[in-house]
Amino acid sequence: VAALPASAHLARAEEVRDWLAAHSGDYLERLRALVRVRSVSADPAAGPGMRAAAELVAAELRDAGLPDCEVAETGGHPVVLAARRDAGQARPTILVYLHYDVQPEGELADWSVPPFEAVLRDGRLIGRGSADDKGPILMLCAALRGLAECGGDLPVNLIVLVDGEEENGSRSLPAFLDSRGDLDADLVAISDTSMLGIDRPSLVLATRGTAGLEVELRTLDHDVHSGKYGGAVANAAVVLAEVVAALHDENGRVAVPGFYDRVRPVDEATLAALAASDPPEQDWLREVGARGESGEQGLRVHQRVWTRPTLDVVGTWSGHTGPGMKTAIPAVATAKISCRLVADQDPDEIAGLVAAQLRRLAAGRAEISVRPSHGSRPVACAPDSPAAEAAVAAYEWGYGTRPVLIREGGSIPIAATLAERIAPVLFLGFGLHGQQEHAPDEWLSVRNFELAANALVMFLLSAADLPRARTAST
Amino acid sequence: VAALPASAHLARAEEVRDWLAAHSGDYLERLRALVRVRSVSADPAAGPGMRAAAELVAAELRDAGLPDCEVAETGGHPVVLAARRDAGQARPTILVYLHYDVQPEGELADWSVPPFEAVLRDGRLIGRGSADDKGPILMLCAALRGLAECGGDLPVNLIVLVDGEEENGSRSLPAFLDSRGDLDADLVAISDTSMLGIDRPSLVLATRGTAGLEVELRTLDHDVHSGKYGGAVANAAVVLAEVVAALHDENGRVAVPGFYDRVRPVDEATLAALAASDPPEQDWLREVGARGESGEQGLRVHQRVWTRPTLDVVGTWSGHTGPGMKTAIPAVATAKISCRLVADQDPDEIAGLVAAQLRRLAAGRAEISVRPSHGSRPVACAPDSPAAEAAVAAYEWGYGTRPVLIREGGSIPIAATLAERIAPVLFLGFGLHGQQEHAPDEWLSVRNFELAANALVMFLLSAADLPRARTAST
Repeated sequence: VAALPASAHLARAEEVRDWLAAHSGDYLERLRALVRVRSVSADPAAGPGMRAAAELVAAELRDAGLPDCEVAETGGHPVVLAARRDAGQARPTILVYLHYDVQPEGELADWSVPPFEAVLRDGRLIGRGSADDKGPILMLCAALRGLAECGGDLPVNLIVLVDGEEENGSRSLPAFLDSRGDLDADLVAISDTSMLGIDRPSLVLATRGTAGLEVELRTLDHDVHSGKYGGAVANAAVVLAEVVAALHDENGRVAVPGFYDRVRPVDEATLAALAASDPPEQDWLREVGARGESGEQGLRVHQRVWTRPTLDVVGTWSGHTGPGMKTAIPAVATAKISCRLVADQDPDEIAGLVAAQLRRLAAGRAEISVRPSHGSRPVACAPDSPAAEAAVAAYEWGYGTRPVLIREGGSIPIAATLAERIAPVLFLGFGLHGQQEHAPDEWLSVRNFELAANALVMFLLSAADLPRARTAST
Repeated sequence: VAALPASAHLARAEEVRDWLAAHSGDYLERLRALVRVRSVSADPAAGPGMRAAAELVAAELRDAGLPDCEVAETGGHPVVLAARRDAGQARPTILVYLHYDVQPEGELADWSVPPFEAVLRDGRLIGRGSADDKGPILMLCAALRGLAECGGDLPVNLIVLVDGEEENGSRSLPAFLDSRGDLDADLVAISDTSMLGIDRPSLVLATRGTAGLEVELRTLDHDVHSGKYGGAVANAAVVLAEVVAALHDENGRVAVPGFYDRVRPVDEATLAALAASDPPEQDWLREVGARGESGEQGLRVHQRVWTRPTLDVVGTWSGHTGPGMKTAIPAVATAKISCRLVADQDPDEIAGLVAAQLRRLAAGRAEISVRPSHGSRPVACAPDSPAAEAAVAAYEWGYGTRPVLIREGGSIPIAATLAERIAPVLFLGFGLHGQQEHAPDEWLSVRNFELAANALVMFLLSAADLPRARTAST
């Protein structure tokens, strides 16, 4: 282990832990105040809420010991950017990424409490954004304030970047990063992932990437009467079904030439560590009411979700979709295809391979137009890196249990951008499996709030000893 | 030929022809007045127009020599019912079926003229319903009035039934037929089909039936995050695509066990007659911009459309169908399936066979619920029947060309009902291929209006000599 043993920081960490035990209730109230500000980035009417949430986050960061904090303009919603670099040149700079925007609340009728009233019930704070990602913002503020109260100095140089558009594709962030030359860091810590449970703290080592395509398949100039032409002309809905059906083989593998070429095999040690995390595979399937088996044969569920790429149709339509029947043969059928990527798969390359295969499959029967729609690279953190080892020690301190190593099947598109432009990424998340992010009744565990703050304290203390790996990004 | 040669009626037919030459312009104006009444049966706001159109049709039938004519109430839009039975018991009774309701006009911007102004241009009357099916109503009125003016007596006993809901599934007609015990006839003549062209008069010998199913396939309780679950659970859109793709074999045949069991082979004489009609197969495909080959291999296009059953997906949707991407795996996928039937295929039996195959294909991966949505039996008229031979002679008289024998790939659902409850059906239609029924700029040929009226006159004269085949339907 490259980092000094956590024992070197024990005295100060214990002091902060006592402080947090006395003050985390206060920080939970601050979090409730932030949850009450509706900051739905996808809602064009949410402008005032976005601004108010950003100002509140900036005020909290200043109060936590980062006076150099601004609400910075972007092409979209503002970013909150704070920095404090007085730990000295020998100490690394950590950029912590969070976001203050939240998912749309959806149907109010699906919630058991109003989504922006930050109701406390049974040890949980229920509200949109409580877990994703406003909780981690206040966990960090509590940890920083605790360090300030107990010893004063900040052990690392710190940049805190709080996005206002994460739930809407972080659209403005790349241009914002381009416009800033002062965001050099040695490590990016993204605090927006989940653990298997409060009693099963987990370090996420990788997220999958994405590649999306919108496909339009056409067999005719226009829809035609199914009586006059039925049997004579190709039906776009049927041809698209045949094309989609041919995208997987009988073993559940994606049947697109070249699709797996850049999927590196996962090493045995990592596979063993992932299996040792004892992922609740059957729960995953039971929770969503899966009606049957699926996926690549010969692999366990967690291997398929954490280590393998996928191809899914996430939306499709053709012909008459209203009530009743319209006996017309559809001329056009549309599909939205979304892939999850791993290892060295490249979104543009995968989109190109899928598009080429779609064209081959439809040839002679239909025209196909394909438009790439989104893409992000997979991101991974080596389990034996000093940053990962510091994180393991920090989770163990915070939760009293050595964390398991897991992966995340989802994607954090901005992670790849940050990894490419700033520094290697560490996923330093404290969400809990099942806390309903993006769904009604999203919740945050009150107990987890304090444990996570303790883990953050130990991480910041340990990170002081991380080797400086900075390469100039400007 | 069982009917007397047309020559027996030549003198009177020639007299009526002269009368029609002088008066068809007047009847065209009457048709324009009827087209101007917007009688869109599918539009809940069209009530007054429906009533006005029915009254106008009744007035025309009375004027044409059928004083016993009523606008009869049904559960929906009214039916116009006229009868005149003074030709004597030795003469057959012919029930002529027409409809005064029209398709919705659709987008006004797609029309080159207002759809209900009955504009005359280049020998065409352009307007919704001009061809389908208001033209044939006035053609019949002109023919009847011509016969009344030239000789006086009506050669057959006649019932005229003008539906107000044909374009909306003739929903009220079966109950209306049940409520009437006085609709006995020897032959039903349905005047609502099309010919290959004005220079290629055609007798339609059969229409296909229909069987529809609405299918809902479910793999999960609810949509799930494609990152968290992608690779682990079955995607409803993909499973439905695989199921639909398996519904046809590599030769384009419907791959549903039992589907073809009741498809009788078409006899060689009929096949030869159909081929001799020289159907414009390549035009059919060119007109609709077909991008490639399709359908059952080894059969010509007209054979596939006129003599073979089909299975089409006429609507399908799953997952996110709005703009942009939503990376969620769909739990549910839906398809509307519509079959065309021939020969002895039964709609309920076919729907059952398709549903059973869908369940087999989805077994172990998804739940499927299937709801039959519509169905009608195929209807055929023997080419060597006396009625068909009288019709051939009548078309030849009206158009000066011996008609070809064709079939119709579409369905007239009420035809099977009338065949079952009243009498065998003859398709006595005068539409022209390409006249845009159900589409913008629907048109009727002014010249065809007069030729068709002449053919109708000869048919009514010849039909006087048809054998009485009546069986009591009450």
